[in-house]
Amino acid sequence: MEFSAEVKASILVDALPYIQKFYGKTIVIKYGGNAMINDDLKNKVMHDIVLMKYVGIRPIIVHGGGPDITGFLQKFGKTSRFVSGLRVTDKETVQIAEMVLVGKINSEIVSRLNHLHVNAVGLSGKDADLILAKKKKAVIHNENGSTGEVDIGFVGQIEKINSGLLNDLLDKNYVPVIAPIGTGEDGASYNINADYVAAEIAGAMQAEKLLLLTDVEGIYRDYNDKSTFLSTLTQKQVQDMINKREINGGMIPKVEACLCSLAKGTGKASIIDGRQAHSLILELFTSQGIGTQVIR
Amino acid sequence: MEFSAEVKASILVDALPYIQKFYGKTIVIKYGGNAMINDDLKNKVMHDIVLMKYVGIRPIIVHGGGPDITGFLQKFGKTSRFVSGLRVTDKETVQIAEMVLVGKINSEIVSRLNHLHVNAVGLSGKDADLILAKKKKAVIHNENGSTGEVDIGFVGQIEKINSGLLNDLLDKNYVPVIAPIGTGEDGASYNINADYVAAEIAGAMQAEKLLLLTDVEGIYRDYNDKSTFLSTLTQKQVQDMINKREINGGMIPKVEACLCSLAKGTGKASIIDGRQAHSLILELFTSQGIGTQVIR
Amino acid sequence: MEFSAEVKASILVDALPYIQKFYGKTIVIKYGGNAMINDDLKNKVMHDIVLMKYVGIRPIIVHGGGPDITGFLQKFGKTSRFVSGLRVTDKETVQIAEMVLVGKINSEIVSRLNHLHVNAVGLSGKDADLILAKKKKAVIHNENGSTGEVDIGFVGQIEKINSGLLNDLLDKNYVPVIAPIGTGEDGASYNINADYVAAEIAGAMQAEKLLLLTDVEGIYRDYNDKSTFLSTLTQKQVQDMINKREINGGMIPKVEACLCSLAKGTGKASIIDGRQAHSLILELFTSQGIGTQVIR
Amino acid sequence: MEFSAEVKASILVDALPYIQKFYGKTIVIKYGGNAMINDDLKNKVMHDIVLMKYVGIRPIIVHGGGPDITGFLQKFGKTSRFVSGLRVTDKETVQIAEMVLVGKINSEIVSRLNHLHVNAVGLSGKDADLILAKKKKAVIHNENGSTGEVDIGFVGQIEKINSGLLNDLLDKNYVPVIAPIGTGEDGASYNINADYVAAEIAGAMQAEKLLLLTDVEGIYRDYNDKSTFLSTLTQKQVQDMINKREINGGMIPKVEACLCSLAKGTGKASIIDGRQAHSLILELFTSQGIGTQVIR
Amino acid sequence: MEFSAEVKASILVDALPYIQKFYGKTIVIKYGGNAMINDDLKNKVMHDIVLMKYVGIRPIIVHGGGPDITGFLQKFGKTSRFVSGLRVTDKETVQIAEMVLVGKINSEIVSRLNHLHVNAVGLSGKDADLILAKKKKAVIHNENGSTGEVDIGFVGQIEKINSGLLNDLLDKNYVPVIAPIGTGEDGASYNINADYVAAEIAGAMQAEKLLLLTDVEGIYRDYNDKSTFLSTLTQKQVQDMINKREINGGMIPKVEACLCSLAKGTGKASIIDGRQAHSLILELFTSQGIGTQVIR
Amino acid sequence: MEFSAEVKASILVDALPYIQKFYGKTIVIKYGGNAMINDDLKNKVMHDIVLMKYVGIRPIIVHGGGPDITGFLQKFGKTSRFVSGLRVTDKETVQIAEMVLVGKINSEIVSRLNHLHVNAVGLSGKDADLILAKKKKAVIHNENGSTGEVDIGFVGQIEKINSGLLNDLLDKNYVPVIAPIGTGEDGASYNINADYVAAEIAGAMQAEKLLLLTDVEGIYRDYNDKSTFLSTLTQKQVQDMINKREINGGMIPKVEACLCSLAKGTGKASIIDGRQAHSLILELFTSQGIGTQVIR
Repeated sequence: MEFSAEVKASILVDALPYIQKFYGKTIVIKYGGNAMINDDLKNKVMHDIVLMKYVGIRPIIVHGGGPDITGFLQKFGKTSRFVSGLRVTDKETVQIAEMVLVGKINSEIVSRLNHLHVNAVGLSGKDADLILAKKKKAVIHNENGSTGEVDIGFVGQIEKINSGLLNDLLDKNYVPVIAPIGTGEDGASYNINADYVAAEIAGAMQAEKLLLLTDVEGIYRDYNDKSTFLSTLTQKQVQDMINKREINGGMIPKVEACLCSLAKGTGKASIIDGRQAHSLILELFTSQGIGTQVIR
Repeated sequence: MEFSAEVKASILVDALPYIQKFYGKTIVIKYGGNAMINDDLKNKVMHDIVLMKYVGIRPIIVHGGGPDITGFLQKFGKTSRFVSGLRVTDKETVQIAEMVLVGKINSEIVSRLNHLHVNAVGLSGKDADLILAKKKKAVIHNENGSTGEVDIGFVGQIEKINSGLLNDLLDKNYVPVIAPIGTGEDGASYNINADYVAAEIAGAMQAEKLLLLTDVEGIYRDYNDKSTFLSTLTQKQVQDMINKREINGGMIPKVEACLCSLAKGTGKASIIDGRQAHSLILELFTSQGIGTQVIR
Repeated sequence: MEFSAEVKASILVDALPYIQKFYGKTIVIKYGGNAMINDDLKNKVMHDIVLMKYVGIRPIIVHGGGPDITGFLQKFGKTSRFVSGLRVTDKETVQIAEMVLVGKINSEIVSRLNHLHVNAVGLSGKDADLILAKKKKAVIHNENGSTGEVDIGFVGQIEKINSGLLNDLLDKNYVPVIAPIGTGEDGASYNINADYVAAEIAGAMQAEKLLLLTDVEGIYRDYNDKSTFLSTLTQKQVQDMINKREINGGMIPKVEACLCSLAKGTGKASIIDGRQAHSLILELFTSQGIGTQVIR
Repeated sequence: MEFSAEVKASILVDALPYIQKFYGKTIVIKYGGNAMINDDLKNKVMHDIVLMKYVGIRPIIVHGGGPDITGFLQKFGKTSRFVSGLRVTDKETVQIAEMVLVGKINSEIVSRLNHLHVNAVGLSGKDADLILAKKKKAVIHNENGSTGEVDIGFVGQIEKINSGLLNDLLDKNYVPVIAPIGTGEDGASYNINADYVAAEIAGAMQAEKLLLLTDVEGIYRDYNDKSTFLSTLTQKQVQDMINKREINGGMIPKVEACLCSLAKGTGKASIIDGRQAHSLILELFTSQGIGTQVIR
Repeated sequence: MEFSAEVKASILVDALPYIQKFYGKTIVIKYGGNAMINDDLKNKVMHDIVLMKYVGIRPIIVHGGGPDITGFLQKFGKTSRFVSGLRVTDKETVQIAEMVLVGKINSEIVSRLNHLHVNAVGLSGKDADLILAKKKKAVIHNENGSTGEVDIGFVGQIEKINSGLLNDLLDKNYVPVIAPIGTGEDGASYNINADYVAAEIAGAMQAEKLLLLTDVEGIYRDYNDKSTFLSTLTQKQVQDMINKREINGGMIPKVEACLCSLAKGTGKASIIDGRQAHSLILELFTSQGIGTQVIR
Repeated sequence: MEFSAEVKASILVDALPYIQKFYGKTIVIKYGGNAMINDDLKNKVMHDIVLMKYVGIRPIIVHGGGPDITGFLQKFGKTSRFVSGLRVTDKETVQIAEMVLVGKINSEIVSRLNHLHVNAVGLSGKDADLILAKKKKAVIHNENGSTGEVDIGFVGQIEKINSGLLNDLLDKNYVPVIAPIGTGEDGASYNINADYVAAEIAGAMQAEKLLLLTDVEGIYRDYNDKSTFLSTLTQKQVQDMINKREINGGMIPKVEACLCSLAKGTGKASIIDGRQAHSLILELFTSQGIGTQVIR
């Protein structure tokens, strides 16, 4: 469907209040899921980010690994063992993960953005010690009911974000694109959940918003009843729903990332549907918005 | 007609190449005609300018006087005498013109822009000697075929634009709104055609574009045949059309302003239809564009 | 009388301690009364302001309307009604007041200053929302002794000074000249007493001094006995004199402006005689000073 | 052998003239060969670079791939075909090369430098379009004596260096570490010889020096006679030696890189022995220097 | 004689055009002769310089040695030998000269200026190698009519002015006070004629004016006829008068200093009478001016 | 003994942690004693300071007078009277002291540093009122056991350090060299103990370190037993040793200076042996260090 120029112009002007609202603000985007696999969606997310940049937003992208890591591990003949849902990550595994994340996925995002005429710069947590991390222990529940900690290798949790480099780059109009690799005191690489990386970066930057691109519409009171969609939740409401197990499964790390980033100073955190074309623009620049936002 | 958020988002993203094209560029808008009288159009022009500002353009507005000057002259019981189409402007007339331009029209535009959350600052040619002018003589054609010059009072022609103040204001993110009053060496006020003021300002600022809002669609090869609309003309083509009297009447000062601003360094100059809603946005941010542009 | 170069040189050097005292300081001048009407005095005030600028002061001028507004209202056949000494100001009246203040008086001051080689910029309260105002109600005393409030139209009282624009202009060496028009939330124009505008501007700028040019020498303990002239009064002394009705009539708004500006952070406030040639220079740069100053 | 503090102090002071000579200058280091494989040498090179940084030099590191790329290709079961000595590089091969260069080797250098308390930032030619490249054709010599060009895939030659990002990082005291991956107009990755990348970067940055760390002592007139070592050669002498085939084999790309960087504005270019401990410091800060330098 | 405040104010305002003329300009003052000996004159010169600073001038003071050097040499029992009018200056003599110039005279001027609330900083030609000098040879005329050169020790002529330090200090609002000691390549001290130092400094700084305070009124066509005073001379006229020996004796180095500074880029150079109270202010800020100025 | 380039390189690299530790830090050096008399030591101290500057330290030098002052006083036939160990300093004496300190010693240090290619600038306490001082009274012990104060002339104690000039010079990469002359309210010169000047400057600049070059190795528990050397003492330990008279004589002012500078914010203060070649470098850049440091 083609629209008249008049329609286009008036839609542009209607976006003005939203553009003004985010002008000069930092927004952190966790880029993952289908939006990172489907080529058409990839393309649309890139356009959305470039538009954000040109209307005065300071976007920061944190990406996940998608299925690429698993694919490359298979090519190398590595099979993965899991403990409490976390992949046991030996030295060779984290090495391959880092190569895929930094040398393939990050590199491709940077290249696509530059192609659209913004100056993107790829980073990992090692650059200027951006993400200091330490070993994350997996908790196991023994048969006798007791719990214990198990070493699962180079899976990291964040100790500190050194945001100086991000500010230096943003001030010079670069768009930082960050791979979720942390660096240990000893210089070791750690693979970190990208949702948490995005949340901590958003907190450290005192971002206006954290946007998590996922493969679901957002949060429902009752997942089977589409009419119970929740467009806004407070921190407390989210915590209650977790306690009551109304939120569970793969949604847990998403909402935990939201809560974490709010606790560290982010303005708002939203879970939005990356399968939807131009979901970032929909969320930021239209009255409807999409997804579920978590507020204070 | 209401559009879905998806449509809106994709229209916003379609505007990206145009937004990128004008990012950081200076654009001078001559604001006059119906767009300055009709309240709905006024409102839309203001929104257009604010949007331009927020997507990274440095807009400068030059406005005309509209029918307000004539109205106030009548209230004061002044009747106007014309020589070769130029109003004979005595001291009292220019005083009233200045009061209307600076104290009413300029003031209202500034107020409307500030209301939409940009910082607008009203200027006349007297502020920091922005527009230095001298007396313009009217040329008369005597019965015997000879020509002569007649003093028509305080009608000015521009001698010099002191653009320092404009740069200082633009660098601090203000939107300058300029009334077409020039200042003479002796401090006298001169009334100047706003098209020429806009053209000279665009030239002095080495603007990317001069946009003249008028009450016509643009230039036609044959004014009676709408199918002969000309969307782009070179300087030379315009000059030829003037010589052949294919352009005449009220269109002459418009195209002269375009030629003048190109000669002084403006990138392009366009005559666009201010009666059309959101004509500025149509011209800048859609593939169709509108009006007639004059290029080198 | 002509003086020898030696005398001139030594007088210049004698001014040094005063020049040092005000170097780099902001001084707000309320310009009104005879000093704004008599052409010779006008000229001298302008020279004084330029000298202030060149010896390192940051002057800001706020001007009143003088008899011009009344003159123009008469030309338009408007007759004014007064309530409790305040002119009832309908929409047309405030429009004419704004045109006279901004388009005539302000414009002339700016032109004169530029002519003396400082870069003056004319402003009204609408520029970058410099003076936010709301409707001022007149208090009336009913026959039965009770009091009430009456709507007298577009007479404003100041809600907030947005001093950003003033600082931006002063930092770039411009001299701001301000017309006492405020802007309401709805974009309406309000006519405001210039003494109060000067006082609030001085407060918001944390000015070193507020200088009110008036048509009297200053304050006397006994107005009929010239020997009782008071050259310095504390805030408290002024308040006591108001309470005892030793200060009354037209002097009340002047001293209230002084008290207001001191309360908001101005260093000192002086009422000086604008009928005296070079009264600004006399006050600032000679040991005698003139007028009455109000201190903390 | 332990030295007395006095000896140490006097050696530090003896280095002063060399430190002064390079203060504030940009030096590009091509890091490759044994110095990138042997752990002890790695460690020493890193210390050398950190010392360079702390005595006021602006170092830029360009690294090669070492045997890692070949190793990973083997793990993936890729076998390489060579044409005229250049590896035929299909899409999967360049993908693996990029992953190894950017996600493993670059990452490790950055991590080691940060560990020594300089802020290193890893880059590839894709970041802010640092290295624009196009396909390099291999020249083949046919049996009939004619020559032809063969497409060998994603092997690149440099079209343009966009040095803005390097300057922004150096000005903020970061040490850039660059992987030799170029980006094509279409966003494709190209594998480029690291010596040439270093040479072009040195030229674009108008570097004081290009230092190529290799596995030989430098250039000999007669390679079999160690007494014919050449410590300085002019561009012309090098060209003559190439023409006379006195320089040949693996040394050709090294000296071509030197000639290229001199032609583009680098001050001097040196081939130094990376197998020697602290060869960078030896070259820069001692009277003996090491290796062969090529000068204008 | 006491003057009324009105007289004072009008004299201050009369100085405005002169103040505007020199605003932001650099003026070099050679301070010597009676103005450096008589305590009342000293005091007045200091006030003049402080006033210059406060009305926006960037003054630089170069001082001579007055009779202090001779006095201290006598105290040390040194007798001086002269060749062609130049004192033969052995190592001990230049040492004492430097101590007197830098440690006594310069120090006193700095102290007096700081006491009047400007930030003065004392310099000699050694500070940041401000004045690079070499040995000046005296020319002698032998009895047989031939000429020869004689080594007269540590009398210097200027090779180069390194004006970086002066600009750094002026930009931070300090007043530089310079003792006429030059530094040789070997670090030796050279005593240099202060008139020449002032001239070279004025040239290197592209000063607006060089003012030489002397003990004469200026230049006369006929020294015995006061009515032949010359207030302005061109370079050519001065050269002619030197050639015709109409200028001779102690006036020669003064006019040579003027010619030298004009040749190197100073705007104008004036010889003024330091015995006259406030001669600097008279020269700069009154219509009469004083002394003889040399122009292009 | 000549060392191999390899040895030199590794010693340079060994200094890296120390260089990093002091990078960007301000260090104040009191330069006096033998290090200021012996030409070879002079030369070495200068090299040390230049090296400090080039490895990123901001050095400030405060020098004493050495035997030069006494020598010049003798030449002038002045004999000195002492009260409680302090020289009675009449006007002529302080004048000669200032001339020697500022015009000879300071001048020579500045010249030597510039010769080694750093930009040194000589200062006394008069420059921009760097050191404000007042008269110091000597305490005398009368025979009857009572104490009294005696006027000993122009011996000063510090009232205030105006460090603005030092920061302006350091920020522009100059090395300040300070003579210990203070300025009184009346502009009088005061001779001040250089150890105290260095201590107060270090405090005012919040220096990382104060280094006092002396003619002893440092502090011993028992001066006659070299094995009791103390390399580190806390403030409290020093105070205890003073109270127990374990520290006495000429060491008292040294340790008092250390305590004073620590109290005012200096990080550490060290007494080091200036008779030792390159003692500054030894102290700062080797693991052994030298001398006695006083810490909090």
